[in-house]
Amino acid sequence: KTGTVHIVGAGPGDPDLLTIKALRLLQRADVILHDRLVSDDILSLARRDAERLYVGKAKSNHSVPQEEIEARLIALAREGKTVVRLKGGDPFVFGRGGEELDALRKAGIPAFVTPGVTAATGCAAAANMALTHRDCAQAVTFVTGHAKGEADPALDWSALAALKNTLVVYMGVTKAETIAGKLIAHGRGAETPVAVIENGTRENQKIVKGALGELAALIETGGIKGPAVLVIGEVAARADGETLADLALKERLVA
Amino acid sequence: KTGTVHIVGAGPGDPDLLTIKALRLLQRADVILHDRLVSDDILSLARRDAERLYVGKAKSNHSVPQEEIEARLIALAREGKTVVRLKGGDPFVFGRGGEELDALRKAGIPAFVTPGVTAATGCAAAANMALTHRDCAQAVTFVTGHAKGEADPALDWSALAALKNTLVVYMGVTKAETIAGKLIAHGRGAETPVAVIENGTRENQKIVKGALGELAALIETGGIKGPAVLVIGEVAARADGETLADLALKERLVA
Repeated sequence: KTGTVHIVGAGPGDPDLLTIKALRLLQRADVILHDRLVSDDILSLARRDAERLYVGKAKSNHSVPQEEIEARLIALAREGKTVVRLKGGDPFVFGRGGEELDALRKAGIPAFVTPGVTAATGCAAAANMALTHRDCAQAVTFVTGHAKGEADPALDWSALAALKNTLVVYMGVTKAETIAGKLIAHGRGAETPVAVIENGTRENQKIVKGALGELAALIETGGIKGPAVLVIGEVAARADGETLADLALKERLVA
Repeated sequence: KTGTVHIVGAGPGDPDLLTIKALRLLQRADVILHDRLVSDDILSLARRDAERLYVGKAKSNHSVPQEEIEARLIALAREGKTVVRLKGGDPFVFGRGGEELDALRKAGIPAFVTPGVTAATGCAAAANMALTHRDCAQAVTFVTGHAKGEADPALDWSALAALKNTLVVYMGVTKAETIAGKLIAHGRGAETPVAVIENGTRENQKIVKGALGELAALIETGGIKGPAVLVIGEVAARADGETLADLALKERLVA
């Protein structure tokens, strides 16, 4: 008898932000395939004897190619296993969950998707910053800074700059300077507020904030290295976070 | 001693899509203020003796004005109560959670925000349709069709049409025809796929799909009345849902 694959969102990091359904599926799964953004705290909620397979992807270091992940999901289901494919955030927002679902359906495997709290909303709550605030944003756009290989993301920067609402960039740290440059070149003001939220909702969360024109400096001075979202737009001014001036003051106090 | 207010996202409808944290807060709260989109199934998970206050908003029928909701939250916290302000979806995506947080902070009330699965991602999972799919969408934008009073939403339709990625309209049913017209007038093709997901993730979920040019007919023929999101863009072609042809066939079979 063929097993089942559940493609499940693990939420933004805090295990408490798993959904009840995700928790139940973790406790039922025979095998869990997870990526880099899923923490040990979350994996520890799974059935003790469940097999855990790391198929993680660092940004430019795909340890297991996408096709192989899909082949493994199919093979495990054909063995009759209940499989959870656990993905950080929501599987259908830059998670390649769509491709995995396509492959599973093509192979005739019963497959289901459980949504999760996506990084943008998790980080917004953690920063006490509404993504849409009646006073300043009637729309929010999510884009990814992560393009294939070393390429810059192929996005319509002119339209993104023109929207002048909230823009959230997933996986945007390494391309932050390019992204800020493109937005400014297309007319978004260099003084537009930005916030960078690293490890949002986790214990090691860090938030820095400032202006679009100083985004690269914020990331550099703030020491942002981990998974982070960039929030660009008026709402970012409301984020709880440290400015370049705060960071400089802290450095003087330490020195 | 002053109490605490938690602004909590209840997710898209299915009680199983509450977060673990939301569930715990519901079981701890003395008072819960909830709106129309929060179902009885979810409210039944709260502490049995918790006070439940409906402060719901129908679209053009604000039963309790926003300022009064904020005043009540403040007054209850000053009585020492643990208060949950429970909102459909995520509180920071078109939820006015930002305004409530501002008011609470201004009044000196300890306030915290718990994110939730927002309607767009909940409905996308329910329709088995990725919001971003490598093959056809590198970005997703959420807008609201609900403007103050009878006005049309004040959005840059030219930029939205130019983005040519995924557009999700919250509370867009009554303005669907206007929205489709504006997008087409600004250059988005009338053949662009659309999906309308009503009561997404709930037992009475309904999904209809077709083309942008026939959006109003889809809503009319599909009998869409409840809370729904509109998904506009290539990804909508992948949604599990009924087309106008399916609906016509069903009508012939019934007749």
